[in-house]
Amino acid sequence: MSQPHFSFRLHHIDSKCCARRGTFSTPHGSVETPAFMPVGTQATVKGLEIEMLRATGAQMILGNTYHLALRPGEGVVEKLGGLHQFMGWEGPILTDSGGFQIFSLAANVRIAEEGASFRSHLDGNPVELTPERSVQIQESLGSDVAMVLDHVVALPNSIEVLRDATERSIRWARRAKDAHRRTGQAQFGIVQGGLDVGLRIECTKALSKLDFQGYAVGGLGVGEPPREMYQVLEETVPALPENKPRYLMGVGRPQDILEATARGIDLFDCVLPTRNGRNAMAFTDQGTLRLRNLKYIDDPRPLEEGCACPACRRSRGYLRHLFMADEMLGPILLTAHNVTYYQRLMAEARAAVSENRFLEFKVAKLAGWNAADVQSEP
Amino acid sequence: MSQPHFSFRLHHIDSKCCARRGTFSTPHGSVETPAFMPVGTQATVKGLEIEMLRATGAQMILGNTYHLALRPGEGVVEKLGGLHQFMGWEGPILTDSGGFQIFSLAANVRIAEEGASFRSHLDGNPVELTPERSVQIQESLGSDVAMVLDHVVALPNSIEVLRDATERSIRWARRAKDAHRRTGQAQFGIVQGGLDVGLRIECTKALSKLDFQGYAVGGLGVGEPPREMYQVLEETVPALPENKPRYLMGVGRPQDILEATARGIDLFDCVLPTRNGRNAMAFTDQGTLRLRNLKYIDDPRPLEEGCACPACRRSRGYLRHLFMADEMLGPILLTAHNVTYYQRLMAEARAAVSENRFLEFKVAKLAGWNAADVQSEP
Repeated sequence: MSQPHFSFRLHHIDSKCCARRGTFSTPHGSVETPAFMPVGTQATVKGLEIEMLRATGAQMILGNTYHLALRPGEGVVEKLGGLHQFMGWEGPILTDSGGFQIFSLAANVRIAEEGASFRSHLDGNPVELTPERSVQIQESLGSDVAMVLDHVVALPNSIEVLRDATERSIRWARRAKDAHRRTGQAQFGIVQGGLDVGLRIECTKALSKLDFQGYAVGGLGVGEPPREMYQVLEETVPALPENKPRYLMGVGRPQDILEATARGIDLFDCVLPTRNGRNAMAFTDQGTLRLRNLKYIDDPRPLEEGCACPACRRSRGYLRHLFMADEMLGPILLTAHNVTYYQRLMAEARAAVSENRFLEFKVAKLAGWNAADVQSEP
Repeated sequence: MSQPHFSFRLHHIDSKCCARRGTFSTPHGSVETPAFMPVGTQATVKGLEIEMLRATGAQMILGNTYHLALRPGEGVVEKLGGLHQFMGWEGPILTDSGGFQIFSLAANVRIAEEGASFRSHLDGNPVELTPERSVQIQESLGSDVAMVLDHVVALPNSIEVLRDATERSIRWARRAKDAHRRTGQAQFGIVQGGLDVGLRIECTKALSKLDFQGYAVGGLGVGEPPREMYQVLEETVPALPENKPRYLMGVGRPQDILEATARGIDLFDCVLPTRNGRNAMAFTDQGTLRLRNLKYIDDPRPLEEGCACPACRRSRGYLRHLFMADEMLGPILLTAHNVTYYQRLMAEARAAVSENRFLEFKVAKLAGWNAADVQSEP
């Protein structure tokens, strides 16, 4: 299907690595890439009123098909004007397909050729999700970008399991492509294959023939050592069509984002800035701060000098107090800060790519973070 | 102590009742009265980022001495610039004295002439609060208005208990007055006396001699029938100095606010709009909405037509979804709505007083709310 509303313009590739500067245009506006999409699982980026979300600099956000289909149901969202109007976000939205949530959240999962059967994590009710049903839900939600349903498996895993899941993901991608009707909505394919580069390349080639409007790399960041993930990206990404946006799904420690950007990824999403914000952890250029620490009790400094987010108009001492007193405003403010931090990181990354200094930029950032300090919450 | 920073200008008294229009000026700005102060117990109005709080139209807020003294401690707040800077609220702040919290929250309370001994509701540690200590805490917090420590008792109660507590409250008020040093901070006395009008009048006269910059009516809204509270106000308020602001502590159902305004009260505070907002209850001119109700599942209407709050930019269906999905944004948005609603109610009340139509205004509002429908959450 022709999608005149979408385009990806590749402006520049850094002369010393594969990092790219581009603009991805959608019916709800443009996204300067590389870009980070905050996660709005249940039609809200947790804790952020929509104007606060906008003020972080976020251009595009992600919604979860699995969650929204279970609650409130895509029919309700559609009746209330679609996901954009429902939640009040006027910018671009990408919805995932549900594949990863079935893998990570659902119970009693059975994968057959037709689709996945599982029990809802909310009420235990049986649910079926097929490639066609995932397309239909996302068409009802009305996102700008819909992802195809994929079969995600744990890593490490045997080559037989990986091959089976990858080949199924390709067949499901074809069915999703055939089922897709909605104009004004792009569809992205998802490359699977675990840590097996051969499988990844095979999958990439098969999906490329289907001519999606963008391509994701899925099934990474599920527990494998970061080095191995970077290696897979290094060999897989160059096989993707150059003129389409490339999206690394669900991977989002700051260092992972920079390493993947250096290898040619354009789009990211991750719960890390929002989830860790709720857990009193703030990202800064000098590494992470754990705001419950007693040393911040009367610290008059902002989280980060020069940051324009609402948290940085307060002192670390105040933010600590909010967490110790179990006040909602603590999670709200740290979420706003972390999302703002991620958006600033991406803006700086884009500038660095344009000036062919992305690798130096990456080294400087990593040094500031002091690598070991930047950790996901347990 | 002379307080040139403060003034109360009485602009008008409604020709048909005791409702008053005034302006209370403080070092952090002016408050048009009658006014409602949202409660920011722990240096935050729960769920509202400070710009959202400002956008509700709130002019003055309340902070709690008891809570802030226990956590983070008034020394921390003082070191971080005082309560205004600590929480980022540049407008006027009133702090209560801790008297009501000792009555309602603390354990093992013993009241002696010197002061109150009790155990912290946070960690069970023993705490003492005397009239002088309450003054000192509030001076460290740096609020615009400090309340004197009072001895609050349950209602109904014997005349002996009421007399003892009232007389002690008068003696404590005198000690608080003697202890107060901070310029730029006004001090209000608190009238006690339960439902006994004789005691109330006695207390009013004794406190008037101490020449406070304002007077509160305390110890009401603690379970007695509203009619009896209105009766006490009707007989007590006229005995208060006319040229000073009059504050009814902790009472805040919309109908109570209008009934008390009609009897000459200028200032209000209550947790109702914020607490009920967190519990999915929205105030509107047509009564309250309980947003978890299934009937709102795909209701496209805002909570209230014409309301400029961020919740009313969304549908009731979306707000219901947020509560059903346990999303923080539900409490955030309903709190913003309810506080906006209360501020709009007060603005309308002020306009009505100016035009000598406050009683008609009150009747119309009560009819809209359908009285029985407006209830505190259990």
